[in-house]
Amino acid sequence: MVEGDLREYILDLLASRSVNLEEIVDLVYFLQKDMQPGLTKEECRVSIMRVLSKREVQYALLVGIQLDILAEKGLVEEPLLSILREDSPLFGIDEVLALAITNVYGSIGLTNFGYLDKQKIGVLARLQHEEQELKGQVHTFLDDLVAAVAAAAASRLAHRHGESR
Amino acid sequence: MVEGDLREYILDLLASRSVNLEEIVDLVYFLQKDMQPGLTKEECRVSIMRVLSKREVQYALLVGIQLDILAEKGLVEEPLLSILREDSPLFGIDEVLALAITNVYGSIGLTNFGYLDKQKIGVLARLQHEEQELKGQVHTFLDDLVAAVAAAAASRLAHRHGESR
Amino acid sequence: MVEGDLREYILDLLASRSVNLEEIVDLVYFLQKDMQPGLTKEECRVSIMRVLSKREVQYALLVGIQLDILAEKGLVEEPLLSILREDSPLFGIDEVLALAITNVYGSIGLTNFGYLDKQKIGVLARLQHEEQELKGQVHTFLDDLVAAVAAAAASRLAHRHGESR
Amino acid sequence: MVEGDLREYILDLLASRSVNLEEIVDLVYFLQKDMQPGLTKEECRVSIMRVLSKREVQYALLVGIQLDILAEKGLVEEPLLSILREDSPLFGIDEVLALAITNVYGSIGLTNFGYLDKQKIGVLARLQHEEQELKGQVHTFLDDLVAAVAAAAASRLAHRHGESR
Repeated sequence: MVEGDLREYILDLLASRSVNLEEIVDLVYFLQKDMQPGLTKEECRVSIMRVLSKREVQYALLVGIQLDILAEKGLVEEPLLSILREDSPLFGIDEVLALAITNVYGSIGLTNFGYLDKQKIGVLARLQHEEQELKGQVHTFLDDLVAAVAAAAASRLAHRHGESR
Repeated sequence: MVEGDLREYILDLLASRSVNLEEIVDLVYFLQKDMQPGLTKEECRVSIMRVLSKREVQYALLVGIQLDILAEKGLVEEPLLSILREDSPLFGIDEVLALAITNVYGSIGLTNFGYLDKQKIGVLARLQHEEQELKGQVHTFLDDLVAAVAAAAASRLAHRHGESR
Repeated sequence: MVEGDLREYILDLLASRSVNLEEIVDLVYFLQKDMQPGLTKEECRVSIMRVLSKREVQYALLVGIQLDILAEKGLVEEPLLSILREDSPLFGIDEVLALAITNVYGSIGLTNFGYLDKQKIGVLARLQHEEQELKGQVHTFLDDLVAAVAAAAASRLAHRHGESR
Repeated sequence: MVEGDLREYILDLLASRSVNLEEIVDLVYFLQKDMQPGLTKEECRVSIMRVLSKREVQYALLVGIQLDILAEKGLVEEPLLSILREDSPLFGIDEVLALAITNVYGSIGLTNFGYLDKQKIGVLARLQHEEQELKGQVHTFLDDLVAAVAAAAASRLAHRHGESR
């Protein structure tokens, strides 16, 4: 599967996990609008699409979302199954994969990732709510990965904005 | 210089840069109090002291604070001098050093670090304010390093709390 | 499951994937013997046991080995299944998990990890050989994780040796 | 200073520290030639130039080399001065900056970085030798940073080669 196709596959995969592109656009716009007056949602969308075309990002998303799905289906062995289902605050491998995503655009994305992940803004609050309310739904990796994609897309915009000045 | 002495040196160094231990205690308490009812400030203080006894943490603090000081004295060469003095949002090496600190207690500290760094809570707001108001003062590394020490100390408490349950 | 039990579980899990503790001991001894004359294999063993008692390390091992197993069973969806089965050199998520392990003892473990992973010393050569020769066996994560545990145990010895001088 | 100018500045800075571009080209070619038959040194050179145009890479190089220079001049305060002059094996901040460089092209560069850093191939052996033999010369950061640039340039080639197949 070539890289461009893989990006389409991942957008479909995100949609199948109830995350659509416009929700990530909203996060990027929220993070970056004050730093970059005149920023449009279309620019945010383009930036996300560029982030999603990076192989490291694609692989982190594939692995994390697959683990969520396998945990939902009960195909993961114990004790990992319980750890994933409970989204234990001491489990840090979701942050490890998220970091692999933000790092592609340098370390300035770290702060935005942490902020989104803690504040549970927008789609991230919905994902957490679904996980807590809907029995059996696992979003242990998904919320961190979505926050990381948004943070990376904001970093990319910041770097490009810095260059154009 | 042995490790324990180095910790004392670093506490003095932080104080000389206007950061005292109690301000970091407040950050750790703020981060962790809701997760751990009954948490005392003394436990937060002990956790910070343990974090500050780790060699990787000590070295990251030594390097970052030294760079702030050398930039203040004008001993850093251009173009790095201007980058440090302006605390450019595209400069990510301060976050890179901060990550080295949080990583010692696993990746769960990442979220707290990003949150503190973005929200500029407590002492972090003061450091930023001083940098902007007091001509010549450079805290490019200091605020990130302090946030990272607090996030690491909170992670350490979380891990220990998790074990004791 | 408490932390000590989890360590026993992980030793069993490694054994079930054909890696025994003595092979990791050999890697640690190989890495550290020239830096630390008089080092015994027993000290290496103790260091590994301490590394394996760290929660971040345990979780990275659980996740990575689980993915290998699920790929072997064909329970991972495409295109990730093919990526894991082929152990693509462009897949970096195994290195990402390995880094989470080495980071617990600071960044000095990075060099040893990279060296072991490239040179495929000892047990690492066997794991790679098995993967290539035995149809259906997947060690995409296992070899990196074992190299990372050995590198972390060597870092821990180096830090302790440095303190005692 | 715009990004392109900064790259020229960094090439001059490397040269002033006795590292020339062709020596880094040799490292990249060494790492990648077996994976990519027909690879030319010109392709390696182009890849390095692309790596050196990334802002995160530029900032890591500026900071690390500046610290080497300031330590040589004795402008760094104790105890950091002695730590940098002795290039202590327990000092990991040089690896931390190196990681910031390799991460820009994903985590597959980690292995090559560790390998180069351990084996001290080509220019890296010369830098280490100079540091040990020439009294007062400090390359604590330089050797790791050069290894990281070479590893990143090899990763970039690997990713592009993977896409073109």
